[in-house]
Amino acid sequence: MLLPRLYFQHFTSGSFLAERNGELVGFLIGFLSESRRGESYIHFVGVAPEWQGGGLGGYLYQLFFDYSRAHGRTVVRAITSPGNAGSYTFHRRMGFDVEPGPVAFDGRPVHPDYDGPGLDRVCFVRSL
Amino acid sequence: MLLPRLYFQHFTSGSFLAERNGELVGFLIGFLSESRRGESYIHFVGVAPEWQGGGLGGYLYQLFFDYSRAHGRTVVRAITSPGNAGSYTFHRRMGFDVEPGPVAFDGRPVHPDYDGPGLDRVCFVRSL
Repeated sequence: MLLPRLYFQHFTSGSFLAERNGELVGFLIGFLSESRRGESYIHFVGVAPEWQGGGLGGYLYQLFFDYSRAHGRTVVRAITSPGNAGSYTFHRRMGFDVEPGPVAFDGRPVHPDYDGPGLDRVCFVRSL
Repeated sequence: MLLPRLYFQHFTSGSFLAERNGELVGFLIGFLSESRRGESYIHFVGVAPEWQGGGLGGYLYQLFFDYSRAHGRTVVRAITSPGNAGSYTFHRRMGFDVEPGPVAFDGRPVHPDYDGPGLDRVCFVRSL
């Protein structure tokens, strides 16, 4: 997945990079909602395979939670694909609730066609 | 082009829809830059073919300029594809300058691979 350049121009404040020995090993791209003044949103997150399971993802999330709280946000949202069991488990462990959906995949509530035809999503929400 | 749902959740404040007899005839999706506190950005604009040339696009831009000024913004940015001569003329007429680029297409300055491999863009900037 390639992100349009606008994310690196206009949404760097709520985005975080993790480096180790000068190499990028993880990142989180997030933003404060412009129209929902109490909410923030985690758009895209990645951790290099050799660094997964060591708490780096959770640390990036905590940085974003702190950033969101510092800007008066009380709710944070994120989405994932229905088949991504690892992401589901991670978000549940990070304190996210799952929004009820009309269908389910492998026990996970799903919103069909959420981001367009065929783009089903699981929706997470967490209080800050 | 389909937009992810997040734009309709978190960036409605700076976005505008134009309807005629209950039909959508034009729209503008924009936002205030979160990290560049003096800037705003026009992400995506469309006007139905039968309504083009009648000033609707310009009106949507003016609404967004007003919204941006009301939030203390002094610069607005936008991009377009190198081959889109209509968009180029429109932005120039709306008072946008064109950022110099290393190459040119049909006389228009271009930034190669701006949004990823093969995604060349023309970059506009306008004072508010």
